[in-house]
Amino acid sequence: MPSIDLNSDLGESFGSYRMGDDAAVLASVSSANIACGFHAGDPRGIRDTCRAAIAAGATIGAHPGYRDLVGFGRRFIEVDPAELRDEVVYQIGALQALARSEGGTVRYVKPHGALYNTIARHEEQAAAVVAAVRDVDAGLPLVVLPGSLVERIARAAGLRTVAEAFADRGYRSDGALVPRGEPGAQLDEETAVHQAIAIARGESIRAQDGEPLRIAADTLCLHGDHPGAVRLAHRIRAAIEGAGIEIRSFA
Amino acid sequence: MPSIDLNSDLGESFGSYRMGDDAAVLASVSSANIACGFHAGDPRGIRDTCRAAIAAGATIGAHPGYRDLVGFGRRFIEVDPAELRDEVVYQIGALQALARSEGGTVRYVKPHGALYNTIARHEEQAAAVVAAVRDVDAGLPLVVLPGSLVERIARAAGLRTVAEAFADRGYRSDGALVPRGEPGAQLDEETAVHQAIAIARGESIRAQDGEPLRIAADTLCLHGDHPGAVRLAHRIRAAIEGAGIEIRSFA
Amino acid sequence: MPSIDLNSDLGESFGSYRMGDDAAVLASVSSANIACGFHAGDPRGIRDTCRAAIAAGATIGAHPGYRDLVGFGRRFIEVDPAELRDEVVYQIGALQALARSEGGTVRYVKPHGALYNTIARHEEQAAAVVAAVRDVDAGLPLVVLPGSLVERIARAAGLRTVAEAFADRGYRSDGALVPRGEPGAQLDEETAVHQAIAIARGESIRAQDGEPLRIAADTLCLHGDHPGAVRLAHRIRAAIEGAGIEIRSFA
Amino acid sequence: MPSIDLNSDLGESFGSYRMGDDAAVLASVSSANIACGFHAGDPRGIRDTCRAAIAAGATIGAHPGYRDLVGFGRRFIEVDPAELRDEVVYQIGALQALARSEGGTVRYVKPHGALYNTIARHEEQAAAVVAAVRDVDAGLPLVVLPGSLVERIARAAGLRTVAEAFADRGYRSDGALVPRGEPGAQLDEETAVHQAIAIARGESIRAQDGEPLRIAADTLCLHGDHPGAVRLAHRIRAAIEGAGIEIRSFA
Repeated sequence: MPSIDLNSDLGESFGSYRMGDDAAVLASVSSANIACGFHAGDPRGIRDTCRAAIAAGATIGAHPGYRDLVGFGRRFIEVDPAELRDEVVYQIGALQALARSEGGTVRYVKPHGALYNTIARHEEQAAAVVAAVRDVDAGLPLVVLPGSLVERIARAAGLRTVAEAFADRGYRSDGALVPRGEPGAQLDEETAVHQAIAIARGESIRAQDGEPLRIAADTLCLHGDHPGAVRLAHRIRAAIEGAGIEIRSFA
Repeated sequence: MPSIDLNSDLGESFGSYRMGDDAAVLASVSSANIACGFHAGDPRGIRDTCRAAIAAGATIGAHPGYRDLVGFGRRFIEVDPAELRDEVVYQIGALQALARSEGGTVRYVKPHGALYNTIARHEEQAAAVVAAVRDVDAGLPLVVLPGSLVERIARAAGLRTVAEAFADRGYRSDGALVPRGEPGAQLDEETAVHQAIAIARGESIRAQDGEPLRIAADTLCLHGDHPGAVRLAHRIRAAIEGAGIEIRSFA
Repeated sequence: MPSIDLNSDLGESFGSYRMGDDAAVLASVSSANIACGFHAGDPRGIRDTCRAAIAAGATIGAHPGYRDLVGFGRRFIEVDPAELRDEVVYQIGALQALARSEGGTVRYVKPHGALYNTIARHEEQAAAVVAAVRDVDAGLPLVVLPGSLVERIARAAGLRTVAEAFADRGYRSDGALVPRGEPGAQLDEETAVHQAIAIARGESIRAQDGEPLRIAADTLCLHGDHPGAVRLAHRIRAAIEGAGIEIRSFA
Repeated sequence: MPSIDLNSDLGESFGSYRMGDDAAVLASVSSANIACGFHAGDPRGIRDTCRAAIAAGATIGAHPGYRDLVGFGRRFIEVDPAELRDEVVYQIGALQALARSEGGTVRYVKPHGALYNTIARHEEQAAAVVAAVRDVDAGLPLVVLPGSLVERIARAAGLRTVAEAFADRGYRSDGALVPRGEPGAQLDEETAVHQAIAIARGESIRAQDGEPLRIAADTLCLHGDHPGAVRLAHRIRAAIEGAGIEIRSFA
């Protein structure tokens, strides 16, 4: 039986500030990317999210980001690579301890936001993230954009990489995402469901220019930070299961 | 051969801000209380301090504090106990990962500053710290003020406690420290050296009111945040060794 | 025509994190307590809130708090009074500059959360807040709990004080608020509307124990951080206006 | 009598963390660039520095930076320009209030570190800083790198600009600074003193490649963050005064 993983960013609340509907999203995903306190998340919310992920049967992954709460980790920061490496080790370790407190285990790493985007092309920062994962546990898979620089560096360093695709984002025919803000960057719900099924089946999707594009992905990223996103996540899960594809963690 | 441990707070620099002369202090102590990023310390400095502690043969301990960089963890915060527990787990886990990256292991926990003082008498916060240590590893000893509330709670919870004394602080005859700011709170260098040797030998010291006081301590706290403190640390180490007492970690 | 002021805490979002429905609340209040970046608020949101307050005809007040984003300023911190004074000056000054950029003026000060509660009884912190307001502008009124220590200290220092009452909080017959978590602390919507009208009219309310209680208040605090609170704010405004009482800033 | 201004970055301590010897540097400079709490500085230290600057007769300037304490404002951050503008207004306003509390006035603005460097060439961020200064007070001069993009944008917007030169940094013959880390970036003390006098006299200096270079500067930047820097500052002041040039604020 074919299978695919569904992942989402969780645990991103901070103190009195709520972000996303984690409980609703956990009903749809097999993998929980849990914030580690630098771009979002506080220790109490992180623990609660670990507990909820375990209860929902979702695999726990570390979701480290830049140290930038006000920017929610969505802005590039020119961090020294040695410092970035240590920041990523720190974040994963903190999550590991909270996950273990709840009887869970961190089973993969997926960088967040601007860090994810930056290491797709920034060699020093990509190498820093790869070194950090190896520092913690060379057996931890790293979720990456397929074809990115960090994918190559991680593989060369002996890390397992997990290719990620996006259900609700448009692609260019070269496989890159249509940048946010450009036409076609954000897909409507109907198109996103179809794209998700196609990727899960290993079929071609339609790129922005109409060309067919094949994306080999091990995991699909869903969002949960607004009501429409939660509904889309539910629909995608139902559609993929309806197509006879198992939703299962890659880890 | 009798022995005692010497500990000091380390890794408390932050970014461009330097705090203490860690290298100099590491020449004197057997235990390094390493800051975990909440009251002080950043991931890069924490890693560097782990490496230096390992090189110096010092045992690594976690030194968690309140989330209060501007106050350096020296101010009481009315944190919810459940949140405090998670903050302590988070901090220890982060340090564990950085220590492991350098081939080291976190072998004990000593809370910092206002947190250390608060849990000597604040039941909910004391229980939160004890629960946090148990969450991480019930085998980790907790460094405490002898006779404090946290000592009782930790023992009742099955944790090993390590009694700490202060070489350069005056004691009242009931065993409490003379509060900072009061006369006799801070001992001069000569008196501190004598007090250190007496405690290391298991002999009585002289309390503030002149009464003899016996302090059973497993570890002596030294400071390293100014030149005089570093010199005192060196003198105390030399004096204790000169008295035929081994300086050795309790862990 | 009799009048009363209605105030609410606004501008408390932070980065990607939303807090409250400022636009909806601004339709009900005459005074906007705008967060200043320490317990909540970031410069961009603060400016946006100033602009919205001006457009809505609401008076702008500074809403300084403890430096405690993760705790949303709701936890006591043992800040040194001299430091607290400077932190309050800093916050008011920052808000003044943003308000002026939008053509507005800061016309009063209302401390937030734990700081508000603390200075009702903590002499040093109360004196620090009073000194801060005088440092900035001795003509700025300070919103206080009637009968509190800070009210006395502020008046003795020559500041104008503005007595505040709470529409949706229960009172004890001695005039103190029923502490949160105790029965009767939070009033239902119907009772809150009646209490608001009674206070606005200068009539007695019913304390927790059933005794009548007269609260002389210049301003009523409304909340806007959840849909029920916004609806209550609208109802209270309508009820007060329906009773022939003008809603007008005290400043 | 010819004159020149000497400026230095001050007030950059944070909580228990000390940075620089402000008292020593204030003996040498005519302008104090005071940190505003984002890259460095806390309210108490900022006030103390205002008081010390006033006592020393130095002019107070705002020294806003990126919101990046751990990076000390030395790292580029991809801040949204609208947000940056508001962050700069916020910082200047906060300093204004503390300066006024001490009887002083903020008389100019000099951005810090990576922000200073970025706006020399990044149009949107440069425009944001210029807009911020205009928001606060269109009469405040802005200290800039001569020939930089921000200098042109500021002048076009009607702001007065103040050209800054560096005593201890090497220049390329095109007027740009030799980047840090490259040979000739940092001048030795002797060369720095000569360069300072030449600039103060309006004479040519020698660029990195030996070519003569004329730098028209209204102010010279001195550093105070290590003992050598303080000594250099004293020597430069003495040498300039010895050359019959008055040291006087441009403001």
